[in-house]
Amino acid sequence: MAANLTGTTSDLRTTFLGVYSLLKSELLNDPAFEWTDDSRQWVDRMLDYNVPGGKLNRGLSVVDSYKLLKEGKELTADEVFLASALGWCIEWLQAYFLVLDDIMDNSHTRRGQPCWFRVPKVGMIAVNDGTILRNHIPRILKKHFREKPYYVDLLDLFNEVEFQTASGQMIDLITTLEGEKDLSKYSLSLHRRIVQYKTAYYSFYLPVACALLMAGENLVNHIDVKNILIDMGIYFQVQDDYLDCFGEPEKIGKIGTDIEDFKCSWLVVKALERCSEEQRKILLEHYGKADPADVAKVKALYHELDLQGVFAEYESKSYEKLTSSIEAHPSKAVQAVLKSFLGKIYKRQK
Amino acid sequence: MAANLTGTTSDLRTTFLGVYSLLKSELLNDPAFEWTDDSRQWVDRMLDYNVPGGKLNRGLSVVDSYKLLKEGKELTADEVFLASALGWCIEWLQAYFLVLDDIMDNSHTRRGQPCWFRVPKVGMIAVNDGTILRNHIPRILKKHFREKPYYVDLLDLFNEVEFQTASGQMIDLITTLEGEKDLSKYSLSLHRRIVQYKTAYYSFYLPVACALLMAGENLVNHIDVKNILIDMGIYFQVQDDYLDCFGEPEKIGKIGTDIEDFKCSWLVVKALERCSEEQRKILLEHYGKADPADVAKVKALYHELDLQGVFAEYESKSYEKLTSSIEAHPSKAVQAVLKSFLGKIYKRQK
Repeated sequence: MAANLTGTTSDLRTTFLGVYSLLKSELLNDPAFEWTDDSRQWVDRMLDYNVPGGKLNRGLSVVDSYKLLKEGKELTADEVFLASALGWCIEWLQAYFLVLDDIMDNSHTRRGQPCWFRVPKVGMIAVNDGTILRNHIPRILKKHFREKPYYVDLLDLFNEVEFQTASGQMIDLITTLEGEKDLSKYSLSLHRRIVQYKTAYYSFYLPVACALLMAGENLVNHIDVKNILIDMGIYFQVQDDYLDCFGEPEKIGKIGTDIEDFKCSWLVVKALERCSEEQRKILLEHYGKADPADVAKVKALYHELDLQGVFAEYESKSYEKLTSSIEAHPSKAVQAVLKSFLGKIYKRQK
Repeated sequence: MAANLTGTTSDLRTTFLGVYSLLKSELLNDPAFEWTDDSRQWVDRMLDYNVPGGKLNRGLSVVDSYKLLKEGKELTADEVFLASALGWCIEWLQAYFLVLDDIMDNSHTRRGQPCWFRVPKVGMIAVNDGTILRNHIPRILKKHFREKPYYVDLLDLFNEVEFQTASGQMIDLITTLEGEKDLSKYSLSLHRRIVQYKTAYYSFYLPVACALLMAGENLVNHIDVKNILIDMGIYFQVQDDYLDCFGEPEKIGKIGTDIEDFKCSWLVVKALERCSEEQRKILLEHYGKADPADVAKVKALYHELDLQGVFAEYESKSYEKLTSSIEAHPSKAVQAVLKSFLGKIYKRQK
């Protein structure tokens, strides 16, 4: 198993997917519950539909990061398995968020297929499926990490990050509240707060924190690593906001609706910052409406304000700043972890 | 504070509600999140609406149970606080389940007021509020129990019980699936499985398990206590099913809709067990329909089959069995805990 990790990316992915199958079969036979045939089938299908179909970046990066922290020392099969299991816990967490977010946002597609709650016979059962996904994480942790010295830190970490994500989602939801559409509340500071909590902690900090714990590190000694990863997560979400409007739907796997949904997107915040009084009126009139004609007006304004150029400059500035923070870190192994993350997202198209 | 506990029930309730206020204010200032005014207000109102308005039996019983385990020894103010905090964690768990269950069941009222998701401007944000409620539990545990030797056991306990509850909810939901209405699947064994997982673990086992951990006990030594409490929880849910049809809406705080909702209720299971071929046809035709005329037909059949008498006999038999299991337990203190639970629910009207 370990040998695969020194091979190609697709080997790593294959190994990683093998761990998914094992974890799934353990969960479907969890002795803490008396399964019926129907319920086992339901969970089996629900997991396959929602957990492994993404890019798996978050999950794979636990294995990558752990390997880099070990500075090239060959990993044992057990280490590969454990790092993969933690990676899958993050993928499970992500699946839980996405299943519930899609319900709250009334979305249609996700990862190129209908959202889970739109699948026939699922409907609002998806709410409970979300909580099942979430509950699988401590089941996996208990089964494979209960005897590790860092077990309690893992539980605390997942709990804290989940709390932060749900809190970020909350400010996102309440600022986008129907009937309270108020662009004057939108600012870079609110945007930063939403994306830091809603995305950065679980997507960037969590994978590295898992790898650090497995490597025997105490997380209180790595606040600087956390801060760099949070900044990287904010940059990642700005890209996401950008791609929602300017990306190719086939590449990003969904049709962006941030404009229709009155989202506090980086683009609208930048537009508000740069617009004239006249242009501001266009935003006030057309932002947050479902009609394609309104959306087109907003997009035309974004072009007029050269938000593509503004983004390109933001992107290269962010890259420079992140690179210099990373290079200031005392450990070469940690630098390698952080650079690997940055490399994966810089100038991404999807 | 501790003195209150030796006083009247209303003193205990007052002390307990005081702990709620303190926990709430800690949560509203949790340093793991950068609050906005709007988000702090939102959570404040959401907590007051959903957490403290129930009977508080589950929460209060942690304090009661701990006191009984201490065999009359006066509790310190700190012990009262900690037992109350654990009690509130269970009330938070309950609030989380109820907020989400009401969405999934498309319910209208809860505890005599509109369900949270039906409150203006809340809507599907209630899904995220449910996850916020759930996330508060580990926040409370970390703040007040992190240094206790039983901290990790508390986390494991809450995780396992939540998993069991969500799994019970799942079999309830998938057996009640729209378009798959099939009474032939309904049996006492399916009913037992649903109620054991969906209700008994968190309502009966969890409060006592919390008290046992605080008292320094290892839960693996108390499987017999767990089994008695699970049986008591099943009996409690049978009462609930009974009251849904035969209870007074003003007392139970809601209008029962188990018949309309095609629920696998104890009543329909008993009716299926006792009915003639002719009567079975009535059930097949009228069970699970929203029209009051259909509901009336089902209720008339329940009367015809004397389900009130069948329930009365079940109730007294359960009481006898539970009493003899309790009296077989070697510890008088544990007996007192279990008898106190049984006393609170026997022949309840609400």
